[in-house]
Amino acid sequence: MTKAILASTSTLHNQDYLEYLIPHIKELYKNAEEVLFIPYARPGGISLDEYTAKANEAFAKAGLKLKGIHEFRDPAKAVENAEGIFTGGGNTFLLVSELYRNKIMNLIKTVVLDGTPYMGTSAGTNITGLTMQTTNDMPIIYPPSFKTIGLVPFNINPHYLDPDPNSEHKGETRETRIKEFHGLNSQPVIGLREGSWIELVGNKITLKGNLPARLFEKDKLPYEIESGTDLTDLN
Amino acid sequence: MTKAILASTSTLHNQDYLEYLIPHIKELYKNAEEVLFIPYARPGGISLDEYTAKANEAFAKAGLKLKGIHEFRDPAKAVENAEGIFTGGGNTFLLVSELYRNKIMNLIKTVVLDGTPYMGTSAGTNITGLTMQTTNDMPIIYPPSFKTIGLVPFNINPHYLDPDPNSEHKGETRETRIKEFHGLNSQPVIGLREGSWIELVGNKITLKGNLPARLFEKDKLPYEIESGTDLTDLN
Repeated sequence: MTKAILASTSTLHNQDYLEYLIPHIKELYKNAEEVLFIPYARPGGISLDEYTAKANEAFAKAGLKLKGIHEFRDPAKAVENAEGIFTGGGNTFLLVSELYRNKIMNLIKTVVLDGTPYMGTSAGTNITGLTMQTTNDMPIIYPPSFKTIGLVPFNINPHYLDPDPNSEHKGETRETRIKEFHGLNSQPVIGLREGSWIELVGNKITLKGNLPARLFEKDKLPYEIESGTDLTDLN
Repeated sequence: MTKAILASTSTLHNQDYLEYLIPHIKELYKNAEEVLFIPYARPGGISLDEYTAKANEAFAKAGLKLKGIHEFRDPAKAVENAEGIFTGGGNTFLLVSELYRNKIMNLIKTVVLDGTPYMGTSAGTNITGLTMQTTNDMPIIYPPSFKTIGLVPFNINPHYLDPDPNSEHKGETRETRIKEFHGLNSQPVIGLREGSWIELVGNKITLKGNLPARLFEKDKLPYEIESGTDLTDLN
């Protein structure tokens, strides 16, 4: 049975890395001894080893061990044999490029649908949408495609940020950017605020966390949805 | 002789569209009667016609007329015959896709180096760097390449925004994103704050406007450069 947590962010203000997710990590991976970590997104350009060490420190608080996918000779085998998978945040373009280069994009979908528990934060959540086209990241590398895993039948915008009414900045707001996306694409986009996550249990998709999320559907005004909302039929 | 204005933004807080640039527009296009407008970036998804009408209203204040490139049967001929070119802001992925689709990416470089005066704002400035990889925009469409015109031998980040020391948001700052870019790419990036522009006159490249800009070079700490700084040898 599919079990997944798709979190907007790894870290909340004034908290440690993954701190607010520790109880959920314990529950998600309760049958695993070691979880496979996919560190390809390398936030701020840190190394795969540094990133894995950082994630291991957080997972230790849930009584779990992580092993970085780069420590395996065969990344596809590592995915196939994983007792659980966690994909960390960073740059989505880099993450998607590496998933394609290592030929594991579709494989992750297969094993997760088959029951391997999955958690993503930020970029690791972005890739579970239909495409990576609602990322906030810079295109620092040219991936072979923008198509992603599609664990959910819509797109996700992590770190969703409301327009600041006092801002004097003229760069596009997040809402305007998503409107531009809907000029060319039809799937719904869920703007996940930091602290929210999407929970997958079997076929059921539910909004979790303390905050409402903002839902963008093509040719509709965006609207708020409360935590606990069933998103299973959103597409 | 090359003459170009590469502006961070079209619009300043509490001003009309292009208002602060009107005197410079007058000077740049002083030998033109009609300027070719490239509206492909369609900010907020507005139509090519709506966008052209909006830009025409602003150019009228400089005593100039604009004609949208979509009004010509042959976009390449329109570029070749233009007395001046203005590329407006919006979504850089869409702009780059359309420039490739219409086979005018390199042609714009050729005519501008040959003396056709050019102005870009935001996305229209982004495409004058070596690549579009330091855009802030969402990847709403998959372009055939991230390579852009390269009127200047570096990359540009328009709408550059300093980190907000009071922010509780955990999404990457602009500075972190550019650092991630430099993990994989070597060219310098100039962070152009709103109100700044880069002026090209012949071979000379100069920072203009009232504000300093922020310069990012690979493996160096970012630093401020004053308006008036000669950027000709930056690469």
